[in-house]
Amino acid sequence: MNTLLTNVRIATLDDTFTIIDHGYVVITDKIFTHVESGDPPEHVKKQADRIRNMQGKWLLPGLYNTHGHAAMTLMRGYEDDLPLDRWLKEKIWPFEGKLDREAVTAGRALAMSEMIKSGTIGFLEMYHLFMDDFAEQIKDTGMRAVLTRSVIGLCSREEQDAKLDESAAFAASWNGEADNRIHTMLAPHAPNTCPIDYIKRIVERAVDLQLPVHMHLAETKKEVDDHYKMHGMHPLDQLDQYGLLNQVQWLFAHGVHLEQKHIELLAETKALISHNPISNLKLGSGMAPLSQMLQSNVSVSIGCDGVSANNTLDMWEELRMAVLLQKGLLQQADAINVKQALRMVTKEGATALQTGQPGMITVGAEADCILLDQTAAHLQPEQQLHSHLVYAARGSDVTDVYVQGRSLLENKQLITLDEEKIRFEANEQFAKVAHSII
Amino acid sequence: MNTLLTNVRIATLDDTFTIIDHGYVVITDKIFTHVESGDPPEHVKKQADRIRNMQGKWLLPGLYNTHGHAAMTLMRGYEDDLPLDRWLKEKIWPFEGKLDREAVTAGRALAMSEMIKSGTIGFLEMYHLFMDDFAEQIKDTGMRAVLTRSVIGLCSREEQDAKLDESAAFAASWNGEADNRIHTMLAPHAPNTCPIDYIKRIVERAVDLQLPVHMHLAETKKEVDDHYKMHGMHPLDQLDQYGLLNQVQWLFAHGVHLEQKHIELLAETKALISHNPISNLKLGSGMAPLSQMLQSNVSVSIGCDGVSANNTLDMWEELRMAVLLQKGLLQQADAINVKQALRMVTKEGATALQTGQPGMITVGAEADCILLDQTAAHLQPEQQLHSHLVYAARGSDVTDVYVQGRSLLENKQLITLDEEKIRFEANEQFAKVAHSII
Repeated sequence: MNTLLTNVRIATLDDTFTIIDHGYVVITDKIFTHVESGDPPEHVKKQADRIRNMQGKWLLPGLYNTHGHAAMTLMRGYEDDLPLDRWLKEKIWPFEGKLDREAVTAGRALAMSEMIKSGTIGFLEMYHLFMDDFAEQIKDTGMRAVLTRSVIGLCSREEQDAKLDESAAFAASWNGEADNRIHTMLAPHAPNTCPIDYIKRIVERAVDLQLPVHMHLAETKKEVDDHYKMHGMHPLDQLDQYGLLNQVQWLFAHGVHLEQKHIELLAETKALISHNPISNLKLGSGMAPLSQMLQSNVSVSIGCDGVSANNTLDMWEELRMAVLLQKGLLQQADAINVKQALRMVTKEGATALQTGQPGMITVGAEADCILLDQTAAHLQPEQQLHSHLVYAARGSDVTDVYVQGRSLLENKQLITLDEEKIRFEANEQFAKVAHSII
Repeated sequence: MNTLLTNVRIATLDDTFTIIDHGYVVITDKIFTHVESGDPPEHVKKQADRIRNMQGKWLLPGLYNTHGHAAMTLMRGYEDDLPLDRWLKEKIWPFEGKLDREAVTAGRALAMSEMIKSGTIGFLEMYHLFMDDFAEQIKDTGMRAVLTRSVIGLCSREEQDAKLDESAAFAASWNGEADNRIHTMLAPHAPNTCPIDYIKRIVERAVDLQLPVHMHLAETKKEVDDHYKMHGMHPLDQLDQYGLLNQVQWLFAHGVHLEQKHIELLAETKALISHNPISNLKLGSGMAPLSQMLQSNVSVSIGCDGVSANNTLDMWEELRMAVLLQKGLLQQADAINVKQALRMVTKEGATALQTGQPGMITVGAEADCILLDQTAAHLQPEQQLHSHLVYAARGSDVTDVYVQGRSLLENKQLITLDEEKIRFEANEQFAKVAHSII
């Protein structure tokens, strides 16, 4: 199968940030076989099974959302403006307690439809319910994902072991599945919900399985303060003291309350960070030291966290927030530049999600790309392509999405999902769960 | 002329935040004559000249953007990541120096098309070039606006007087024009670009003309520090010392670097604030004390500032940024709530822009409203209307716009502007100006 996309402006986001103002790409089965300037020669056209004229569009790598809880998407806007502890105890946990298989499935389908429509091609799910179902959903949908059946360790040793066994079995059975689109990690929930000896056992299992480990880290000041009170040190220092940072590939979410020494420790141990700026603001957690992390060569990607703490899965807004926040926080307009910004949602995202792909439009890479309508008023004048991608583009500018050469969105229509059905079921399941609480 | 909009969900944003889940409105000439629950009775349908079925849409007041420089819209993304002084000296000022009448007109048409398409019905323009042209453009376009021919006072007394005369003549001739859609203010640029005695003369002229005064205030720390060095006090304290705060209605833009005593002074003198959070972040200016202002009962509305410092005119993102930033800054998830947020872009905006309108959907008010498509994935489940307006809605969800009962946007198509022509001219004028610099 040969697909030829012509008449397109290409932001390759490759090593030199090459822009091809007028060019074409050829996708042969799963792979980019041509990424060229100009119009395709006759022999290339003749070999194409399908030719699509992408005039007026930009083509670029897809975006990666490296931390979240898609199952919680039904809770969008369920409650916004309560202090964190009341928000969890009075609203989120009671709602989550009523989530059944249909509700979780509906929330996840909604999340995937929202992500694909806004140009996100891969994401990480950290959750504890119906993970096999989700893997099957993703197989059909065509997205890339890292799936983690997360565990909370505030329970007996037997329960801890049972959860870890379930988590490991899930991870082992799905890693590399769906044409290598699905990868897995083990995932202790957080240092304040998993005793250190449990984290240690989880890491040992991850070593056996040769899998990375995902965990929330230093999200709130209170959580870090409490760790100092109970253990006399920062949670990251405790992981280091137990020798756990070097044993596996870590992907930490949040990392809001870190000192410079912790950032250097992350860099030394090549731990990856998923930065979640909107969630950190909305829940009152604070502002992570993103600029310092980038300066210290920590690999940082971006995540939206759960929709109830965001309230969308729009990676464009998330990226914009990440960049703007650092400029304001440091009162420094050059704190982060456009190229660093674009790397976080493409190359660094592809790395964090274990895709083995470069997150660039380049010959030989798997054919992952998205297209944007460049005619919107907020993208004019159209000259400054990289700038517009960071500071002006919206999820709704995305028109087309390819993953491994398979079309997931065409002219804003979902190909592998039924948007109307998803909308109906999301509203039906929300009403069911909300009603069961009252 | 009677227009009937039926089958619509209405967020009135009135005094009690009434939501009408299924209702209709009647616009008779310029005025809302019915805002009702249910379906319209036969006699109402019979009297309608036009009936539009708005099924699947939300109807709410239009948004107000209370500080900006629409003429600079051509400079979108022209340069983003330089320190402020280099950004101004190397990029923005040289570009502005080459702006001619056609370029300014093209930039402003682009700005209006972007604003209408994203649901902004009124805005403030602070600029010094071709203001009469702009007033004529706005008359045709149908938007609401406050126009200020701003003045910089770093020049001779004769030049100062000439600028002030020009500014006052413009203000006098256009105030209340275009069916009361256009209002004017006088506008000294800023305390660091206008000597205090010039500001004093401007205020005196504003008193004569019974006009408010608009000015940048305490945007950067450097500017405030310099004011202390030169004058021994904060610029707001200097205005107070000269007795200028009580003489006119002030509308200050930015207000980033204010202490609590300044906030109280703003409240006492009923000065209005236009909060510009994205510009303040992007230019490295900092984060304004919005929560404290609201707690002290200062009337705060929201502005996007110039596109080159933003880089869009999307009031949804601007509002979201305002709210999220305070929650993160204060590490307090309940720092601002959804209702306070919606007030800033509707009622407080209508007040700041001197519309005499309530910024609410209510019988007797002029028929200003916008409609959003509620079917997008990022707005599901759809129950939490107010939350979605603050935390999830995008400019591209806006489908229809009415101002004084006149339709400016229908099903995402501009009625009073030619989008394709605007796009062409914006790109042509950008290329012309950019080329003339090199």
